[in-house]
Amino acid sequence: MKHLTTIVFDAYGTLFDVHSVSEKSEELFPTRGRQISELWRTKQLEYAFIQQIIGRYQPFDEITRNSLRFTCEQLGVTLTEEKEKVLLDSYLTLSLYEEVPNALKQLANHYHLAILTNGTLNMIQPLVEYHHLTPYFTQVMSIDDVKQYKPSPAAYSYALDRFNCKREDILFVSSNTWDITGASSFGFQTAWVNRKSQSVFDRMGQQPDHIISNLNELVRIVCY
Amino acid sequence: MKHLTTIVFDAYGTLFDVHSVSEKSEELFPTRGRQISELWRTKQLEYAFIQQIIGRYQPFDEITRNSLRFTCEQLGVTLTEEKEKVLLDSYLTLSLYEEVPNALKQLANHYHLAILTNGTLNMIQPLVEYHHLTPYFTQVMSIDDVKQYKPSPAAYSYALDRFNCKREDILFVSSNTWDITGASSFGFQTAWVNRKSQSVFDRMGQQPDHIISNLNELVRIVCY
Repeated sequence: MKHLTTIVFDAYGTLFDVHSVSEKSEELFPTRGRQISELWRTKQLEYAFIQQIIGRYQPFDEITRNSLRFTCEQLGVTLTEEKEKVLLDSYLTLSLYEEVPNALKQLANHYHLAILTNGTLNMIQPLVEYHHLTPYFTQVMSIDDVKQYKPSPAAYSYALDRFNCKREDILFVSSNTWDITGASSFGFQTAWVNRKSQSVFDRMGQQPDHIISNLNELVRIVCY
Repeated sequence: MKHLTTIVFDAYGTLFDVHSVSEKSEELFPTRGRQISELWRTKQLEYAFIQQIIGRYQPFDEITRNSLRFTCEQLGVTLTEEKEKVLLDSYLTLSLYEEVPNALKQLANHYHLAILTNGTLNMIQPLVEYHHLTPYFTQVMSIDDVKQYKPSPAAYSYALDRFNCKREDILFVSSNTWDITGASSFGFQTAWVNRKSQSVFDRMGQQPDHIISNLNELVRIVCY
């Protein structure tokens, strides 16, 4: 393990399970819950990437709403104002992956921990507080401050600027392969949380330094 | 219809059916053809977008090969060198959507026609020649010349610079919603070819000027 002072986590899909909204969608739209949850997440990411590329930033809470509206129209289900509010609110209470609290507790004894998310602060802060994770993090950062979505170099640079260290002293942890590709290209050390048990990492010219299946494995790598 | 001198077409998915490779993959990998074709296309686009965002350009022929390799590894099928060559070569003989030749013939009587593709020239030129479409196009342009993928403004700007006209004199035609979003944001007129019969267009703040289900409808709009 190289010298390391700080661990920066992605939020959605890494600490918090975005597909935990499928239960709520299943309740509102019986038999369609998983389908809605999956198309919603796919379009949410696509909207962030495309808007980054065309240079027209919209905050992630708006993107999350717009991609939900698209999803329901596309799948032919009627999204009332009430249902929309329920589903958007469910983003503020997404489930934690089960090993997360204990792993963060152990990691926080050795390193500065932080979050860098594409979500807006009004999305991420309530979620962190809901799960009582606030004490573990030195910083909870949103790219909304610089209006440059991950995986753009400007997004990771924003995180780096908040710490007094070199980029290679930071370990960036994400389950999203595009996020690991971006962070690695920027110069962070990286750990890919292979939560979906994909057999292989993407072939975009970057490779994670570590591949783990959950955060307990990260504890074993960096704390002992 | 506003003043119009030039019609610029996207290639893959708009003129040529990228999923026509599924027949060849089905032959090579029985029962897996469609699945391979779909994941391959999804990852091909994702790789182009992510590499655009992280600022590490790789040409589309390399991206096409890398995303095919990822797809086969991920789906657990063995891609020999021979099979890889067969599948990559099939990109040079993709099927045309059936109305395309006749529609291009009519449009070419009234307008300058061009192609602007994310593909490299060594991918697109053989394909255009294979289908005897060369006479209809004034320009066959690849963003590889500027190494900026669509939907970045730089990609559409490159096309504009090749014509002596204003951006609003160009009609951009694509079946890819992200491509219409980018072209519209740049200032082209746009026609979305809704080939997959999606019920709605994306909600990214841009809307196509025209929605058509095939190029015959475009002929009716701009030629009469």
